[in-house]
Amino acid sequence: MKTIEVCLSPALYEFHSNTEEYIVVIVDVLRATTSFCAAFDSGVEIIIPVQGLDELLEYKNKGYYTAAEREGEKVDFADFGNSPSVFLKSSLIGKQLAYSTTNGTKAVELAKRNGNIAAAAFVNLQAMSHWLSVQQKNIVILCSGWKNTFCLEDSLCAGALVEALEMSGKFSPMCDAAVASFTLWQNSKTNLAEVVKEANHFQRLLKLGLHDDLRHSFRLNCSNAIPVWNGKGFVDNSERVKAFG
Amino acid sequence: MKTIEVCLSPALYEFHSNTEEYIVVIVDVLRATTSFCAAFDSGVEIIIPVQGLDELLEYKNKGYYTAAEREGEKVDFADFGNSPSVFLKSSLIGKQLAYSTTNGTKAVELAKRNGNIAAAAFVNLQAMSHWLSVQQKNIVILCSGWKNTFCLEDSLCAGALVEALEMSGKFSPMCDAAVASFTLWQNSKTNLAEVVKEANHFQRLLKLGLHDDLRHSFRLNCSNAIPVWNGKGFVDNSERVKAFG
Repeated sequence: MKTIEVCLSPALYEFHSNTEEYIVVIVDVLRATTSFCAAFDSGVEIIIPVQGLDELLEYKNKGYYTAAEREGEKVDFADFGNSPSVFLKSSLIGKQLAYSTTNGTKAVELAKRNGNIAAAAFVNLQAMSHWLSVQQKNIVILCSGWKNTFCLEDSLCAGALVEALEMSGKFSPMCDAAVASFTLWQNSKTNLAEVVKEANHFQRLLKLGLHDDLRHSFRLNCSNAIPVWNGKGFVDNSERVKAFG
Repeated sequence: MKTIEVCLSPALYEFHSNTEEYIVVIVDVLRATTSFCAAFDSGVEIIIPVQGLDELLEYKNKGYYTAAEREGEKVDFADFGNSPSVFLKSSLIGKQLAYSTTNGTKAVELAKRNGNIAAAAFVNLQAMSHWLSVQQKNIVILCSGWKNTFCLEDSLCAGALVEALEMSGKFSPMCDAAVASFTLWQNSKTNLAEVVKEANHFQRLLKLGLHDDLRHSFRLNCSNAIPVWNGKGFVDNSERVKAFG
């Protein structure tokens, strides 16, 4: 039996107790990990998370496509913001994308110390939980949050992952945050659209008029993307899973 | 309308967003804040939180009563551990108590930067929420957790406080952690004894055979204590509340 832990904020990552080999699953429902899935669904080859905008500009100058968001809004010089619905409408086959966001890329930076990283959201819940269930490794779900505070939508997605992984019969939750996330998800899954309206970051993005993104981000299992870290960036492992059967 | 925030771990305290004057309500159900209430119920005059054991020994040498716990167990030289049921059985009228625990006193240390501090647990939920509701200040509930990780029992108690304060009509939750804690509490309050058995720290104390403490810590409203910081330590404000009517 493998274990599942949940870190409710990047600021709690250093305190998780997993010591054996594990996979860090980054969750940033609004919107980085949802956008990663959308970008892969539109054909992106690799997503390279970048913390600062200076570094992102260097990538742009080297010919990479760039995506960047600060405080929920697109950064001027970038080709894309952090919008899954915009990625879905774009054709990006074979493109390399450098990516910088307020919270998601910070979580990636932390997780890099560990070699095994994946990215999950509601949109790829089934694809990701299936992929995780065949990896035979402990799991630490890292909620990206908002500036190190707890985000309801990330915790709900973590809870949905805990549910799916428990149902595989191969995992059990090993911390209170995993139990609490599971409970929150159980309590919300039949009226998710209503519950997430209470979330601060949902309201923040609503004020920016991002209705399409908000609708898309809570649509379960509409993406087959399995974003997995390859040492340089995230690549889509979905074909490999199919090969595994 | 005043606001309620919840910090799910001491490591998240620096990220809470309250800027106006507020009261920090420390919650450490298992067992520091439950024990504070029990000590006051047995007549203690003041509880002085102390971080290190060296400093605690100095207090002992000065004639203070001492209480100390590490990893759930009583520290040898101290007069008391961190056991509410032992405090309840003791006569401590007028005694001054220096107190050091794994997590609770760390939370106090953080909260000291703010002048207004109170301590809550399930045992004094009603007394504390009534006292808070007449203070006309914003509230930040600081869950002590376990070595900076999230603890289910503290979050449930925070949720119960959020419920009681919202019912007063004077407060509204302003962060996702307050909403989530409230939801967890709603989902658990009719079967609290069952739910808390899933908590890691409950299991840790169960293994130490602390059945009396575990039973007592989830008994609602059995204490009238209102532990409030006076600049040097916690004193019981319960008489003052009665005077306020």
